[in-house]
Amino acid sequence: MPLIVTGSIGIDTIHAPTGNAENVLGGSSIYFAAAASFFGPVRLVGAVGEDFPDRHLETFEHFKLDLAGLERRAGSKTFRWHGKYHENMNSRETLEVDLNVLGEHLPMVPDRYRDSRHVFLANTHPAGQLELLGHFPNRALAVADTMDLWIETERATLMQLLKQIDGLVLNDSEAIMLTEKTHIVRAAEAILDMGPKFVVIKKGEHGALLRHAHGQAVLPAYPTTEVIDPTGAGDSFAGGMMGYLATSGDHSINGLRKAMAYGTMVASYVVEAFSLDRLQQIRRQDIDIRLDEYRKMLHIDG
Amino acid sequence: MPLIVTGSIGIDTIHAPTGNAENVLGGSSIYFAAAASFFGPVRLVGAVGEDFPDRHLETFEHFKLDLAGLERRAGSKTFRWHGKYHENMNSRETLEVDLNVLGEHLPMVPDRYRDSRHVFLANTHPAGQLELLGHFPNRALAVADTMDLWIETERATLMQLLKQIDGLVLNDSEAIMLTEKTHIVRAAEAILDMGPKFVVIKKGEHGALLRHAHGQAVLPAYPTTEVIDPTGAGDSFAGGMMGYLATSGDHSINGLRKAMAYGTMVASYVVEAFSLDRLQQIRRQDIDIRLDEYRKMLHIDG
Repeated sequence: MPLIVTGSIGIDTIHAPTGNAENVLGGSSIYFAAAASFFGPVRLVGAVGEDFPDRHLETFEHFKLDLAGLERRAGSKTFRWHGKYHENMNSRETLEVDLNVLGEHLPMVPDRYRDSRHVFLANTHPAGQLELLGHFPNRALAVADTMDLWIETERATLMQLLKQIDGLVLNDSEAIMLTEKTHIVRAAEAILDMGPKFVVIKKGEHGALLRHAHGQAVLPAYPTTEVIDPTGAGDSFAGGMMGYLATSGDHSINGLRKAMAYGTMVASYVVEAFSLDRLQQIRRQDIDIRLDEYRKMLHIDG
Repeated sequence: MPLIVTGSIGIDTIHAPTGNAENVLGGSSIYFAAAASFFGPVRLVGAVGEDFPDRHLETFEHFKLDLAGLERRAGSKTFRWHGKYHENMNSRETLEVDLNVLGEHLPMVPDRYRDSRHVFLANTHPAGQLELLGHFPNRALAVADTMDLWIETERATLMQLLKQIDGLVLNDSEAIMLTEKTHIVRAAEAILDMGPKFVVIKKGEHGALLRHAHGQAVLPAYPTTEVIDPTGAGDSFAGGMMGYLATSGDHSINGLRKAMAYGTMVASYVVEAFSLDRLQQIRRQDIDIRLDEYRKMLHIDG
């Protein structure tokens, strides 16, 4: 079943205690799409500027992304992010951000994408997410990400969006901010009251929590020792999760948990190198091998 | 196989956003012993002062603790701790601490305890832990806890202790402090190089990480919504873990993981009320029911 993602495509410059990367491919929808591509075909809707380097297009081809919805906009520049990770890699600061094409009108959605069944609205202005969602009347599952900025400044629009999506993915501090609860388990409950059938709260190196009308699940992160660059870990987690869901079609709590485990595995690879470098080196088989190891790590004898 | 615990017995006064508790039973060895008692007999070695209330002795009896090693020292006062939890319950401050009897000589260890097979040295001065360890020549498994104070001030003695124990249990910030690593997975590796066969790093609401010569495991905390008082969660986690290990005798990585899951379940009950109140209401069966639920939460279909 076709999976579609809308969101940012960017050029990142990253400083970390583990090294630096200049003008590498980034953006929420790119990490998502690359991660999801291990499970099935991925349609990408997004815009870049005329400055977008050809070498990054080659990366899209590596992941076999469907690029009919990719717009290279004349006269515009690509979104750029410049950030720095602190010593422990758990916090970062944005040194510079240029919205560029992301601050202009939304990209066009090709008509043939109207049949998309699985939709992921990566983080962007909730009004834009709502508008994009309208292009997919045949959707079986729509999931969105959001961020602190929209929770603070666009709460009413975000609330409208929450009533129209099936699932929300966001990080722990955002969940606390959105619900004004002090505890993420309570925050997850409160988010279900806002509309979605399920919410996945990402806790970075501590894993993720799922709250679903029929129960909950908690999964730890894979305990990797190789954290080179955490950029895109959350987006690739969502990509692995949605990629698996689009293939399995199983949206039950068991299906969601397995999908989250796949997301966790892909994210554990992403952080082992800058940008998408590590994902370009692995195959689906590597993800399954690591999932087997992870499953054993979590198995409690009966 | 007999399990023995040495450590502090205290009288706590706790302020939390969820309420207050005055002069309640506390101390690392008490939370440990109560938690372990669900799995088998527990021997307690520790000292209290003549001010120790009889009602707390009744609590010891509820958990059927073997009290031959409990010393009610004439002319001394019981250890007291007075603390306050902050709004999000994840951080606390000590308002007042009176070492009292803990600052005096060590309690006597009854001769008949020499045959103890499973030994837990709850947090205290590492020189005291080393001396106590010497009383158990027939031990099959010795595990210790420690804290930031000893890592800072008694590193050399702590290093001696690490060479003589089988396992270390400590929290994440302590593991980072002990090893000067920036990442707990790396910290866990470094701790194995210091001597123990395994280390369990406690991450509070984020669960625990096990590193063992033969592999690793990660377990999330049980996602409880009822956090009334986190005091003793770490000690009762260790108690549930060691209690199960002492009964099963299985010290393999699979056995340790299951033991950690039991520790996680007991800790999830402890935080649902002040002091040992919740543990006094439950039975072993309740722990097994919650474990079944937790096991399902973690199960990833093959």
